[in-house]
Amino acid sequence: MRNLLMTLSYDGTHYFGFQTQPGGNTVQDHLEEAIRHLTGEDVKIHGSGRTDAGVHARAQTFHFTTASQIPVERWRHALNGRLPSDIRITSAVEVPLSFHSRRSAKRKTYRYSINGNRVFDVFNRQYQLHHPGPLDVVAMREGLKYLVGTHDFTSFASRHSTKQSHVRTIYEARIEVDHGLDGAGTHEQGILHIYLTGNGFLQHMVRIIVGTLLQVGEGKRKPEEMKSILEARDRAAAGPTAESKGLMLWSVEYEDLAEAPDSAAKS
Amino acid sequence: MRNLLMTLSYDGTHYFGFQTQPGGNTVQDHLEEAIRHLTGEDVKIHGSGRTDAGVHARAQTFHFTTASQIPVERWRHALNGRLPSDIRITSAVEVPLSFHSRRSAKRKTYRYSINGNRVFDVFNRQYQLHHPGPLDVVAMREGLKYLVGTHDFTSFASRHSTKQSHVRTIYEARIEVDHGLDGAGTHEQGILHIYLTGNGFLQHMVRIIVGTLLQVGEGKRKPEEMKSILEARDRAAAGPTAESKGLMLWSVEYEDLAEAPDSAAKS
Repeated sequence: MRNLLMTLSYDGTHYFGFQTQPGGNTVQDHLEEAIRHLTGEDVKIHGSGRTDAGVHARAQTFHFTTASQIPVERWRHALNGRLPSDIRITSAVEVPLSFHSRRSAKRKTYRYSINGNRVFDVFNRQYQLHHPGPLDVVAMREGLKYLVGTHDFTSFASRHSTKQSHVRTIYEARIEVDHGLDGAGTHEQGILHIYLTGNGFLQHMVRIIVGTLLQVGEGKRKPEEMKSILEARDRAAAGPTAESKGLMLWSVEYEDLAEAPDSAAKS
Repeated sequence: MRNLLMTLSYDGTHYFGFQTQPGGNTVQDHLEEAIRHLTGEDVKIHGSGRTDAGVHARAQTFHFTTASQIPVERWRHALNGRLPSDIRITSAVEVPLSFHSRRSAKRKTYRYSINGNRVFDVFNRQYQLHHPGPLDVVAMREGLKYLVGTHDFTSFASRHSTKQSHVRTIYEARIEVDHGLDGAGTHEQGILHIYLTGNGFLQHMVRIIVGTLLQVGEGKRKPEEMKSILEARDRAAAGPTAESKGLMLWSVEYEDLAEAPDSAAKS
């Protein structure tokens, strides 16, 4: 048996999330079907984590074991020929049998994108939350700082979280503002990209953080409230869950593989 | 009566082009329907030009005359509320009655985008031609130079073109290569964006130019053949018509209005 680690991009618009569930039509279902079609094996793949319905991935990862002798460099092309056009394998590498896409992951990064311009961008309408009202980015950056470090994130997790511990570490959090080709000199807010890197994320965690940060940006909360929200350990203390479409799993990093998940160039 | 000039973006994937035609489902149909819904008027709008089925626009323009007294600054929001989400008005300005979106236009720019990476980008799959085979960008740039200036573009026009003259002027032509966030140090070709600016374009002209340039990039033609293709004044001398999805009407420029067509900031 061989253990294969694959990286993929997907547009989550038309899927009920990454992981298989009773309703069907998940990214995992399509991947397992493509592998079955290629090898005849009934394989169960293991993702680095779930993503919710409507959430996208630039570089999600999964692993699975196979008895197939197909050379590793052939897999990407062979699977892409059997997948819908909104799911693309970008790399495939062989890893030790002890490797696990989730348990071996060291850092994960999510990006949440907010279009702050008056008119949303038709070409990114499925990938950006539209928020044309004024946002105080300085206050949002200030608020984000309170989340960096190791904390109990119960306030920022879905009430349906089944994890025993809600303690997670956020290593980096930043907001980049993209004014685009035409933005110079206009009064438009541009696109806000919020990047969060941590050792793991709870269900809805990034979306609740963003929903709360938007309240900070709107002046409805002070940045320093992020601290008392964390301390409350109560979902009710935080803001609403931001829409799924603005969220993208950006990368998954592994110790030995540098940032294996990345683009086609690696395979 | 007042004359209004509007700029809009659209994702052309699901439309049979900009201009009204017997089959229906065009961008113009949706715009006229939105205006009718807003004002009760049966208005015929005039676009700066047609775009084919599947072609996109970052900044198309159209004008129409109206008896409505709705202030110009209200139109954008009012129409966007009555349009599908893949069509967005980005600006609206009042212009003299003598102004015509097509006849008054001084320069138009189109962009054609080619993804030269091994795996296409799921988030831009409707907006980029996928061409993973090697392309000689230096040769393509060399070939493009032969098109700059005033020429008879019969060889690069659809045989169905109904224009009396096929003489057009290309002011600028360039190729930008975008290696993206992750491209440094990889062997990937990146995304090629071909920009063409001229005083007007014939039916299929940009797509035939791109289809021919791709043959130059593949080494099937020499760059200097672009000159003999022009001189042939025969559609059969040029290469195939590149797929519509990679094409985007980038901007339309007017003398008095600088680049009026642009973003929301202007209205």
